[in-house]
Amino acid sequence: MAKKLDTNPYKGVRDFYPEDMWVEKYLFRIMREVVERFGYIEYGASPLEPSELYKEKSGEEIVNEQTYSFTDRGNREVTLRPEMTPTVARMVAGRKRDLPFPLRWYSIPNLFRYESPQRGRLREHYQLNVDVFGISNIEGEIEVISIAHSIMKAFGASEGDFSILINSRKLMKALFESYELNDEDSLILSKLLDKKEKVDKKIFEESVEKILKDKTSEFLLLLTSHDKLLDKVGKDHPATTTLIGLIESLDKLGIKNIAFTPTLMRGFDYYTDIVFEVFDNHPDNNRSLFGGGRYDSLLELFSNDSLPAIGFGMGDVTIRDFLETHNLLPKYRPETNALLATIGTIDRDQVLELTQRLRNGGVSVALNTIAKKPADAIKGALKLGIPYIIFVGEDELTNKIYTLKNLTTESTESLSEEELIKKIQS
Amino acid sequence: MAKKLDTNPYKGVRDFYPEDMWVEKYLFRIMREVVERFGYIEYGASPLEPSELYKEKSGEEIVNEQTYSFTDRGNREVTLRPEMTPTVARMVAGRKRDLPFPLRWYSIPNLFRYESPQRGRLREHYQLNVDVFGISNIEGEIEVISIAHSIMKAFGASEGDFSILINSRKLMKALFESYELNDEDSLILSKLLDKKEKVDKKIFEESVEKILKDKTSEFLLLLTSHDKLLDKVGKDHPATTTLIGLIESLDKLGIKNIAFTPTLMRGFDYYTDIVFEVFDNHPDNNRSLFGGGRYDSLLELFSNDSLPAIGFGMGDVTIRDFLETHNLLPKYRPETNALLATIGTIDRDQVLELTQRLRNGGVSVALNTIAKKPADAIKGALKLGIPYIIFVGEDELTNKIYTLKNLTTESTESLSEEELIKKIQS
Repeated sequence: MAKKLDTNPYKGVRDFYPEDMWVEKYLFRIMREVVERFGYIEYGASPLEPSELYKEKSGEEIVNEQTYSFTDRGNREVTLRPEMTPTVARMVAGRKRDLPFPLRWYSIPNLFRYESPQRGRLREHYQLNVDVFGISNIEGEIEVISIAHSIMKAFGASEGDFSILINSRKLMKALFESYELNDEDSLILSKLLDKKEKVDKKIFEESVEKILKDKTSEFLLLLTSHDKLLDKVGKDHPATTTLIGLIESLDKLGIKNIAFTPTLMRGFDYYTDIVFEVFDNHPDNNRSLFGGGRYDSLLELFSNDSLPAIGFGMGDVTIRDFLETHNLLPKYRPETNALLATIGTIDRDQVLELTQRLRNGGVSVALNTIAKKPADAIKGALKLGIPYIIFVGEDELTNKIYTLKNLTTESTESLSEEELIKKIQS
Repeated sequence: MAKKLDTNPYKGVRDFYPEDMWVEKYLFRIMREVVERFGYIEYGASPLEPSELYKEKSGEEIVNEQTYSFTDRGNREVTLRPEMTPTVARMVAGRKRDLPFPLRWYSIPNLFRYESPQRGRLREHYQLNVDVFGISNIEGEIEVISIAHSIMKAFGASEGDFSILINSRKLMKALFESYELNDEDSLILSKLLDKKEKVDKKIFEESVEKILKDKTSEFLLLLTSHDKLLDKVGKDHPATTTLIGLIESLDKLGIKNIAFTPTLMRGFDYYTDIVFEVFDNHPDNNRSLFGGGRYDSLLELFSNDSLPAIGFGMGDVTIRDFLETHNLLPKYRPETNALLATIGTIDRDQVLELTQRLRNGGVSVALNTIAKKPADAIKGALKLGIPYIIFVGEDELTNKIYTLKNLTTESTESLSEEELIKKIQS
């Protein structure tokens, strides 16, 4: 006999057994409900993308090292998308003349990262992507941050459970310029800020000192004294007024858990102005959950026109962790309303016709004619999480009165077909 | 300036702009509604699978020629799944002891085929997969064929629009045995039957003659005289009684468009008994739409136990073609209820707060503050397919009475906030 095949999935990806799939569907349903309330419409694309889509903004090395890339037999370089923003930029650029702006699009793609297997990080995850194109002023930021906030609330989180960190790359650029830094030093300093929370305080300060020399202690003070930082850049500087206006407008919309965070830079090179990040406040999961920002130049990769754009991506794995940490995940409940179990040997066609009538009446019914005794059928229904079980034997088919057992309350009733349907649907 | 990037997707895959995505979502919604009514629950898996999953049943050459396969840097052979059945078999085998039977699972995965680009066939498509495990008798066949039939009806098709072709591999095996064919000749003959409709009649008959010699004309007659074929195998042969019982039970459930079709063999090697195929009867699209069958031995690839199984796969591309051919696709209508357009320069925060209240009232609102005149806003709403437009200027904010335009009827009304919500939701 041949060697048996392994039942494990490919390294680093997930099988979604129904209870896990149900959680995914719950996450996606809440996400969709909220973004659609804001007028966003769903688009989609294949995970297969031309590799060149990722080279421009990330460098060839990253494409090969951190993505699944291969050459097809037509000699095309193909990549399994590691993020959705280049795809949405490509699609919008492709029909820019025909699309109405402001354009509000969302998608929930799966994304692939070629992580080293030993690190244990997932190689595939799903991510809600929300993007609005064509709004150059702060209304774009207000809207997408409101959406992020609304999704968290729709998941049952209270404002104290999470914080929304905000920064402005333009503000930081102006700050760096006030120290007369050249482009190279500005870049190094912004990367240092991005890593501040991850490195030792002393190492961080020494690295900053290499760039800012005797201005170091003043600069470090600004990172915690935000008023002084804004003063240094100038209260009338456009970057300052934009940031303050954004925070004030969000406040008026009831969004109070905003924290200006000058060390927040966000990884992607394409962000041009405001960036934000949603952070879990729980001591057991004190980490960044997801984020986004404005990227007004990305569409220039495809044509000479630019197009203002802002968006964010919210991953399924981190959101699920957040909900589990805060005990906000609802209990699994399958779409199946009832299990119909037969007792003894009875006429197959009559049972099938009864089941068909129940389904036509709007009840989701799974049929079990193989259970040897009622206890086995009950055990199966409980395993599946099905709330009701209907028992049907010879007598029931003759009298047209059926036994309905509620598996939550364990109560039993004798009901006609119509009563069954009404009861189960109530 | 750098060379501009191409906005086309990767060769052979589709971009789903919102109107196309909406069609996909419509297809998937109908599919889900029907299968869930039959008690099926959704599972999912990554498109990345170990290549060995496909080698056992299809031979190494096919894995390399017709699938996207590559070696990862951990030296694992990976394949982008070309079909879902091996995955569902793997997952069920992996938890066979814990899962309750009968087990009803469905999924709507994307599948990848490494077609030669010039042929123009799609390299990625979506496919509803419906499988039931643990039913060894004909109830499994009755159920999955009923589901296929119900989905077609739920899409608006009438019974005359399509046929359900049915055959039994066991019956054909018995027929071949009655001619005392060896295994090799049986296989050749079944492949010939599978291709009958695609090859020239004379070539077909000559090929059959090479195997059946002087029995050829008798055999060819049986292919069209079904009663004689069943007589030849024997009316009491289990394969005959199963097939006849299946057709009778389906008839009692109101499924009348069944056609016993002895030339139907279906490609996959893993089918063991009943196979079926749904066929479009329209003269413009006279072709097979989708199909399935029983595969009672597939789980033996993973363990020594076998498990009865039957299922089918229904692809999005062929179903969409069917619905377009029969004029059954509904008209696009986005989830967005209304566009709120501002007139002139007005207080941003007041507009945002009004929009927020409308959304909290249950209306999906997209905001347009960039349109220079009402006509531009109307044009945008029409392009997006949004049914209502709300105009808000200084006066409207002061008087709290807003102008609502129905873009279908072109009628205009002045309404309060509450009336707006009520009207749009009605």
